[in-house]
Amino acid sequence: MPIASDVELGSDVVIHHPELVNLYGCVIGEKTSIGPFTEIQRNVRVGARCKISSHSFLCEGLILEDDVFIGHGVMFINDFEPRAANMGRHTGPTVVKEGASIGTGAVIRGGVTVGAGALIGAGAVVTRDVAENAVVTGIPARLLRTIA
Amino acid sequence: MPIASDVELGSDVVIHHPELVNLYGCVIGEKTSIGPFTEIQRNVRVGARCKISSHSFLCEGLILEDDVFIGHGVMFINDFEPRAANMGRHTGPTVVKEGASIGTGAVIRGGVTVGAGALIGAGAVVTRDVAENAVVTGIPARLLRTIA
Amino acid sequence: MPIASDVELGSDVVIHHPELVNLYGCVIGEKTSIGPFTEIQRNVRVGARCKISSHSFLCEGLILEDDVFIGHGVMFINDFEPRAANMGRHTGPTVVKEGASIGTGAVIRGGVTVGAGALIGAGAVVTRDVAENAVVTGIPARLLRTIA
Repeated sequence: MPIASDVELGSDVVIHHPELVNLYGCVIGEKTSIGPFTEIQRNVRVGARCKISSHSFLCEGLILEDDVFIGHGVMFINDFEPRAANMGRHTGPTVVKEGASIGTGAVIRGGVTVGAGALIGAGAVVTRDVAENAVVTGIPARLLRTIA
Repeated sequence: MPIASDVELGSDVVIHHPELVNLYGCVIGEKTSIGPFTEIQRNVRVGARCKISSHSFLCEGLILEDDVFIGHGVMFINDFEPRAANMGRHTGPTVVKEGASIGTGAVIRGGVTVGAGALIGAGAVVTRDVAENAVVTGIPARLLRTIA
Repeated sequence: MPIASDVELGSDVVIHHPELVNLYGCVIGEKTSIGPFTEIQRNVRVGARCKISSHSFLCEGLILEDDVFIGHGVMFINDFEPRAANMGRHTGPTVVKEGASIGTGAVIRGGVTVGAGALIGAGAVVTRDVAENAVVTGIPARLLRTIA
C-alpha cells in the first residue's frame, strides 16, 4: 500500500490514484491535491490548498506553505553533492512560501527558500533563495522580473 | 484501474504495463505505444504510430499528429503562470505535427505548435512555435539548424 | 508483475516498492537500492552499492559501475535523433564509471562515458564524455571544476 499508515491527511485531500503514489511519514494539509507518480517522503509538511502535480518528488524535510503550486515532474534535493557511498549529509530544510508556484520540470536545490508568490519557470534549476514575488528562469535560475 | 473506460484505443495500441499508467478521456491512434509511468489526460488526441516514452505527461487539450515521438520524461503545459488557487486559465491547444520528435526531458509550454519533422533537443524548454524540420535546443529553446 | 523473471538481483538489493517499478532483462549488483517509478530496461548492468533514485529511466545497454549515484528523475538516452517511425538505431553503450554521481533531473545522451568520481549537476544535459572527477553543469553540460 503506497500511502503509509503514518501519513497525516487533512480533510478533503484529493489523491486520484492512491495506488500510483508513494507517501510516507508526511503531513498533507486540507484540500490539497496530489497527482499520480508522486513521491512524498518522511518529514515533509504540505500546507492547505496546495496542488502537487504528477511525477513530482518532495524530499525529506521539505516545507510547502499554503496555496503552493508544484508543476509536473518537479524535483526537490536535500543533499550536498550526493554520493552512493555517502548519503545522509543533508542541507537545511527547503521552504516554499505561501502562494509560490514551481514550474513543470524545475529542480530546487536543498536549503533554499522560495519567497511568497514567487514563480519558478519551467525547467529552471534553483540554486539559491528566491525573493518574494520574483520570477526566475534558466539553469541556474536568474531573476527575470518581479510581479508588481 | 488506471485506464479509464472512456479512453478510445485504436487497433494494435501497445501499453506494456496498464497498471502503471494513468489514461482518461483521451483518444489513442492505431499502433501507438505508451510506456510506463505516463499520464494522458482528458481531451488529448494522439495520432497513429506514435511512440510515447515512459515518465511523460500529456496534458488536457494536447494534439499529437501521426508518427510523433515523445521521449522519456517529456512534460506538456497548458496553463499561464499556474497558481494553486487559480487553476483552469488554460492556453490554446498545443499541437505537435506529423513526424516531429520531442527529446527526453523536454518541456513544452502551452499553446505552442511544433512543426512537422521538427526535433526538440533533450532538456529543452519550448516557449514558442517551432518551424517545420527545425532542430531546437536549450532553455528557452533556440534554433540550432534546419533539417534539409 | 513489474519485476520480470529474467532480472538478476544481487544479494541485499533493496526495492522498496516492487509494484511501482518496471525492471526487465537487467542485472543489479549487491546492496544497490532502487526507488519507485523507475524503469530499468533489458541489457542494463548496475554495479554494487549503487543508489538509483525515484523517477529515473535506465535505457537498454547502459552500464553503471559500482557505487554510482543516480538522482531523481535522471534519464538516459540511447538513440540518435529518435523518430517514431525509425526506432532502433542505437548509439554505443553509455558507461558511468565507479563512484560517479548524476544529479537530479539530468539527461545523459547515448554513447557517453562519465568518468570515475565525476559529478553531473542537477538538470544538466550531458552530450559528450565527462572526465574523471569533473564537475559539469548546464545545457549542454560544461566543465565547472575538477575535484582535487
